[in-house]
Amino acid sequence: MERVDHLADERNKAEFNVDDMKIVWAGSRHAFDVSNRISRLVANDPIFEKSKRAVMSRKELFKNTLRKSVHAWKMINELRLSDEEGIKLRSFMDQPGFLDLHWGMFVPAIKGQGTEEQQHKWLSLANKMQIIGCYAQTELGHGSNVQGLETTATFDPKTDQFIIHSPTQTSSKWWPGGLGKVSTHAVVYARLITDGKDHGVHGFIVQLRSLDDHSPLPGITVGDIGMKFGNGAYNSMDNGFLMFDHFRIPRDQMLMRLSKVTREGKYVASDVPRQLVYGTMVYVRQSIVSNASTALARAVCIATRYSAVRRQFGSHDGGIETQVIDYKTQQNRLFPLLASAYAFRFVGEWLKWLYTDVTQRLEASDFATLPEAHACTAGLKSMTTSATSDGIEECRKLCGGHGYLWCSGLPELFAVYVPACTYEGDNVVLQLQVARFLMKTVSQLGSGKAPSGTTAYMGRAKHLLQCRSGVRNAEDWLNPGMVLEAFEARALRMAVTCANNLSKFENQEQGFSELLADLVEAATAHCQLIVVSKFIAKVEGKIEGKGVKKQLKNLCYIYALYLLHKHLGDFLSTNSVTPEQGSLANRQLRSLYSQVRPNAVALVDAFDYTDHYLGSVLGRYDGNVYPKLFEEALKDPLNDSVVPDGYHEYIRPLIKQRFRSAKL
Amino acid sequence: MERVDHLADERNKAEFNVDDMKIVWAGSRHAFDVSNRISRLVANDPIFEKSKRAVMSRKELFKNTLRKSVHAWKMINELRLSDEEGIKLRSFMDQPGFLDLHWGMFVPAIKGQGTEEQQHKWLSLANKMQIIGCYAQTELGHGSNVQGLETTATFDPKTDQFIIHSPTQTSSKWWPGGLGKVSTHAVVYARLITDGKDHGVHGFIVQLRSLDDHSPLPGITVGDIGMKFGNGAYNSMDNGFLMFDHFRIPRDQMLMRLSKVTREGKYVASDVPRQLVYGTMVYVRQSIVSNASTALARAVCIATRYSAVRRQFGSHDGGIETQVIDYKTQQNRLFPLLASAYAFRFVGEWLKWLYTDVTQRLEASDFATLPEAHACTAGLKSMTTSATSDGIEECRKLCGGHGYLWCSGLPELFAVYVPACTYEGDNVVLQLQVARFLMKTVSQLGSGKAPSGTTAYMGRAKHLLQCRSGVRNAEDWLNPGMVLEAFEARALRMAVTCANNLSKFENQEQGFSELLADLVEAATAHCQLIVVSKFIAKVEGKIEGKGVKKQLKNLCYIYALYLLHKHLGDFLSTNSVTPEQGSLANRQLRSLYSQVRPNAVALVDAFDYTDHYLGSVLGRYDGNVYPKLFEEALKDPLNDSVVPDGYHEYIRPLIKQRFRSAKL
Repeated sequence: MERVDHLADERNKAEFNVDDMKIVWAGSRHAFDVSNRISRLVANDPIFEKSKRAVMSRKELFKNTLRKSVHAWKMINELRLSDEEGIKLRSFMDQPGFLDLHWGMFVPAIKGQGTEEQQHKWLSLANKMQIIGCYAQTELGHGSNVQGLETTATFDPKTDQFIIHSPTQTSSKWWPGGLGKVSTHAVVYARLITDGKDHGVHGFIVQLRSLDDHSPLPGITVGDIGMKFGNGAYNSMDNGFLMFDHFRIPRDQMLMRLSKVTREGKYVASDVPRQLVYGTMVYVRQSIVSNASTALARAVCIATRYSAVRRQFGSHDGGIETQVIDYKTQQNRLFPLLASAYAFRFVGEWLKWLYTDVTQRLEASDFATLPEAHACTAGLKSMTTSATSDGIEECRKLCGGHGYLWCSGLPELFAVYVPACTYEGDNVVLQLQVARFLMKTVSQLGSGKAPSGTTAYMGRAKHLLQCRSGVRNAEDWLNPGMVLEAFEARALRMAVTCANNLSKFENQEQGFSELLADLVEAATAHCQLIVVSKFIAKVEGKIEGKGVKKQLKNLCYIYALYLLHKHLGDFLSTNSVTPEQGSLANRQLRSLYSQVRPNAVALVDAFDYTDHYLGSVLGRYDGNVYPKLFEEALKDPLNDSVVPDGYHEYIRPLIKQRFRSAKL
Repeated sequence: MERVDHLADERNKAEFNVDDMKIVWAGSRHAFDVSNRISRLVANDPIFEKSKRAVMSRKELFKNTLRKSVHAWKMINELRLSDEEGIKLRSFMDQPGFLDLHWGMFVPAIKGQGTEEQQHKWLSLANKMQIIGCYAQTELGHGSNVQGLETTATFDPKTDQFIIHSPTQTSSKWWPGGLGKVSTHAVVYARLITDGKDHGVHGFIVQLRSLDDHSPLPGITVGDIGMKFGNGAYNSMDNGFLMFDHFRIPRDQMLMRLSKVTREGKYVASDVPRQLVYGTMVYVRQSIVSNASTALARAVCIATRYSAVRRQFGSHDGGIETQVIDYKTQQNRLFPLLASAYAFRFVGEWLKWLYTDVTQRLEASDFATLPEAHACTAGLKSMTTSATSDGIEECRKLCGGHGYLWCSGLPELFAVYVPACTYEGDNVVLQLQVARFLMKTVSQLGSGKAPSGTTAYMGRAKHLLQCRSGVRNAEDWLNPGMVLEAFEARALRMAVTCANNLSKFENQEQGFSELLADLVEAATAHCQLIVVSKFIAKVEGKIEGKGVKKQLKNLCYIYALYLLHKHLGDFLSTNSVTPEQGSLANRQLRSLYSQVRPNAVALVDAFDYTDHYLGSVLGRYDGNVYPKLFEEALKDPLNDSVVPDGYHEYIRPLIKQRFRSAKL
């Protein structure tokens, strides 16, 4: 078969070694090798075929996911894949399903909150998938506010059991993935009540369905919550509801690592520090940031390749038209997203380091850095997922009309990605947590307690409150110190202004409530500074590979200056830059776009995505878009027949029947 | 049946007469009566049921649309509905289908471009729906650039026919709605070629399918282009592809009002001014702006009602939690969208007037105002559709996790709405047209030619370039003159800066290309000024009804000050306001939010949407959200059986089969 590569010219233009960049993107040669090998393993297996997902009925899609999940599990076993390889395989399978919750939430919850005995018993079942578990926390009426959950677990000393009960309709569990139709077990969060006293929300291992015939156990009502956003997407998953009618479980199924209930019904906290829970949260959120870069990179890869393939205008003589990627408006929207994908990749890498650091400190009972690490991960989760959701949709629009086709891959990517803005902490609620931390940090300035980690810059408040940017020409905006100082000044000044305004309120809580919107903006400024500073740290460090560092520097400053322009109001109103300096930043940005242009396709090739994983006709590696769009169209069920079903019933009677002459 | 109204308290809080507001929103009592009556007619007809749309297969959905469309047409005839009523009925049917294109594009194209003779022949068939037509312009490789279309219509003097041909794969028609499976005819746009000479793109009436058995005529290849974004949404529509293999049509099927080909093959332009085409464009775009307000109002209505129903946090003692709508962060995101819906409604109303004005002038051969009207409608189409797309998704996020459920109505509303950013002119391309017009206007300042219409303010360039905002306290931001001046100064200064920067380039086109991003921002500033000024004009005029004017004033200034804050960088860098004035605007904004809060639910009730049209469990008029979410969930096919299809094939073998002990 003849291989075409409509993008060969683009690839030849690149001024860096794309194979070297692949290693940098992956994080290491080892990580690249694993990703590369496993993604191709999945791509070449016909069971993992994705192309018909959009036209499958709900039931077909669900069953197809069962099939893929079980196949994936078999492969993991038969090929004796490592943990790392297994995780990659599930990720490249690219279809949400019960495996995600079993491995991503159920098993970790038992690991984190179960005693050694409980871990031994339940993990040995779960690790072999002799039971399938999910994570039942969110309720119909209670999401962000975990402490408001209504489900109860009342200890019955007579029988040594907990009675799990759903007292109201709003207390029904609602949303847990894998719950609706698949899971045999769940970790259920409920208010623990002993002897009439409410001890707040705790976790319990609950069997939901018979292991013999899969029917729900008596006292349990469970089902699927129905269709969600998009075709394909999360409709492959059985997000479920769950209600308990005085359902009894043995006492030893309460997860008792942090606190327990004795045989006598006494509630006893263990000496295991509760802060360990925050360690898990740091872990989960760093993986969300890492997924943000992956998802944004997918969208950017599709939009970049298609922008190089697609031509529009620019010819007045019937000759070949201009590649869309050559338009400055296209570059101005696309390249900051390309830069963002890289920015999130590197801040995600740094968060992995942070998690290791936090874990080591926790093990040594050093909790000092935890609040800062917690605020930082909350803020970065919020900021990167919001930017990625918006970025995917922007990439779809950058593909013009064809981006609206399901086979562009972008509609489903958007639908499957956007829940990340809501789960594991609503993005606005999280920014408010960051803001609270910042307000506390500001209030302690001068108290002798030096801010640390990502807030260390606040220790230089005196300088940052009065400094003036030294930028005099466009090139100065490539100076890491000058860029950082502008972002630090802006973030600090916004935080201090908020703190000053807060102090005008007698009631701090009321003040916080009044100023919520300003606080969110201050938190955002702080988080953007973190991402910019980690990106700068990365490109100022050692980077291997021909021309690689130069490209990453370009992207780094595109990212920073794009943010500066987007939030120019912040920078100007805090006097962190002058209008003239803002205008110089724009000029520098345009120059950077021109430098990225010849490298754009190679920069997305560096993500090393297979066509299977991308799932996009527009983003195909070979750029052979138009013939393949036709092929895809012909697969639609509506094209099964030339004359459609419904012709005889509706169309023919319409055009043949003479209604009385009517004018609409 | 007991009627609940969980939102009764909210409705009682309102400080204005909602029935009066309904009239203002609708535009007149007559318009309200028609909308109110027809929307209920549709809502009460079981054939127009929408709730199963998400779980229908492509074929079922398509057939269901045929059924609804034919039923709508019968109702229009049987009830002898007026044009206005018929259009409303199709709109409240709320399912894209072939009727939209037949009535919205095919018939108007013939009316606008056909000779009287052609109109007589074809409209009499089309008006009775004895033929069904679509509008085949866009090609696989050619969207925005209409002049780049490849399809050819070559005159053959021997047979007095045109030979319609698709010379390449990219010349295939691609996207036209109603083309794939339904239309018997199309207006096809092709390059007219006579005697080897290319006369550019012209329209032709082409029969596609047999009127006897609906099979495509020989030489015609036609089909559906496949799945699009979302479940339901535009998948009800048979957007199609179409290729011609030397397909012949009689000469008199070229639309010949503006130019014609004689029997001898001579190309002759008629004396009908070509500008008439722009009149049609003004019409189409004003209706898109009007639809933007409708769509945004739907999303806002859902998010506002659910924000009043939903409670989260705020109770530390197990008592009732705070309504989400009481949080400032929620108000800060939601109320500007509420204000935008009203803003777009009134600018849409004004555009209707503009269309009438333009039409009257065209009839009197007065083309002077056309370029300004054209730029203005292009810009407003772009700005309102972009804001509406983003706004719908923001409303979805404002509903928390449940906004992700299909039955929230928001995912489908988003999927069905977003193409508006692309069709009838890509939004960025349109803003560039506005920018070109602005640059031309600036270049003519001082030439004696006074700018008119929406650019009239540019005539006061001297003042606007040097004025300083007189705002001294937050209340000043409720002064219409001060608000307008700030927006005018910002828009003018941005335009002038662009013009100055352009003048530094030797080659104007190259300069334009380099500065595209800045030009788009200048165009946006100009368009925002138009919307703000028309909203202010509305609220400064006569408005009937108890308390109505006060509410609209609040919304007007929310809209303006929200824009000011969002684009603060523009205002500051042009010195149109100072940082202190920007901060005062924010303070005023917070005060306005508090004033809108008690009126929020009544302000969305004023849209008078039926629950059928809203199609949202979260946005129900009665606020009875949670029991109805359960009802919806139970309808999902996955809940047909307790044990899912696939259990015996996949789940049971998985949990029973002992894989070799493997740790993931």
